[in-house]
Amino acid sequence: MASLFPPSFDTLIDQFAALPGIGRKSAQRLAFHVLSMPDAQAEAFAEAILDARRRVHACPVCQNLTDGEKCAICSSDRRDASLVCVVAEPRDVASVERSREYNGVFHVLHGVLSPVNRVGPDDIRIRELVARVSEGNIREVIMATNPDTEGDATAMYIARLLKPFGVKVTRLAYGIPVGSNLEFADDATMLRALDGRREI
Amino acid sequence: MASLFPPSFDTLIDQFAALPGIGRKSAQRLAFHVLSMPDAQAEAFAEAILDARRRVHACPVCQNLTDGEKCAICSSDRRDASLVCVVAEPRDVASVERSREYNGVFHVLHGVLSPVNRVGPDDIRIRELVARVSEGNIREVIMATNPDTEGDATAMYIARLLKPFGVKVTRLAYGIPVGSNLEFADDATMLRALDGRREI
Repeated sequence: MASLFPPSFDTLIDQFAALPGIGRKSAQRLAFHVLSMPDAQAEAFAEAILDARRRVHACPVCQNLTDGEKCAICSSDRRDASLVCVVAEPRDVASVERSREYNGVFHVLHGVLSPVNRVGPDDIRIRELVARVSEGNIREVIMATNPDTEGDATAMYIARLLKPFGVKVTRLAYGIPVGSNLEFADDATMLRALDGRREI
Repeated sequence: MASLFPPSFDTLIDQFAALPGIGRKSAQRLAFHVLSMPDAQAEAFAEAILDARRRVHACPVCQNLTDGEKCAICSSDRRDASLVCVVAEPRDVASVERSREYNGVFHVLHGVLSPVNRVGPDDIRIRELVARVSEGNIREVIMATNPDTEGDATAMYIARLLKPFGVKVTRLAYGIPVGSNLEFADDATMLRALDGRREI
């Protein structure tokens, strides 16, 4: 049956429904909400989408998201640039920072190796990590990918790549419940995981 | 703790988080998704928000959403304009249409009376309904508000207002499970509810 909404409204519903985890009914509810917003708020919403895409890019050093030249962490002179924590996604940076104990810098892979999803070493930012390490100013690389099959495999793969440079490569301790997700680690668990890190 | 994302990205997260039913983590996930979209898709999303708001307005006859002059149902000469089904929200029009049995027209109130939420008769489109009925070409008004306290109260209030005009006012039968929501009625239930409607 044809929709009973105006085409431009259906288009908005389609756009919401295309987002991950948003079903048809939720998309409809969100579209109604957008219609009921004050003008300024709807414009701010549309502008936020375009603006984030225009401004946000990868930090040339650590590949984390930034809208400055370098990201805030790489720009800080209070961070130990010889200690690099490697995470899969930008959101994982926040998870490690929550320990309030970590004063090194990061490297964001933007993914993990996954034969199933056809993600190989050239599809994530491994080359950039090797280049950083090859410059010789890094003493330790902490692999903080998720403790699941793909995260472990990615950590092992990178560890093997980095060993020739004589850098210490460690892995977050399994304080994080296995099979779970870095994103949901609480502060204490993240702290234990950092403390118990061991060489791989 | 300050966010570790760039400000323009945080703004986008805030915009998603301001939508109903979207928590902080979901908003973050949606914002990442928007960043990973092809350019054209992100622009289409932003444009859909603005376009829907520019084009969509209330049909001058039935108050349903439309982006034409009158809505498709009010414009159709195959609909019985003397039979008016009163619903609370635009999405409820689709629920009634799903019965494939209804050939009258609609009136969309855009809300129900709710003392708790400070919604009074002047806050929803009751005046427009009374004006339609007072023109004298309507023989029956079917109250199809949700079968809950506010929906029932709204139906009774409107029935009392319309009685002086000598119009027949009916209520959808309780084929719809009480306490539930029109939006989730299946076709068969909606059909029974239409058939069993009774005068109030």
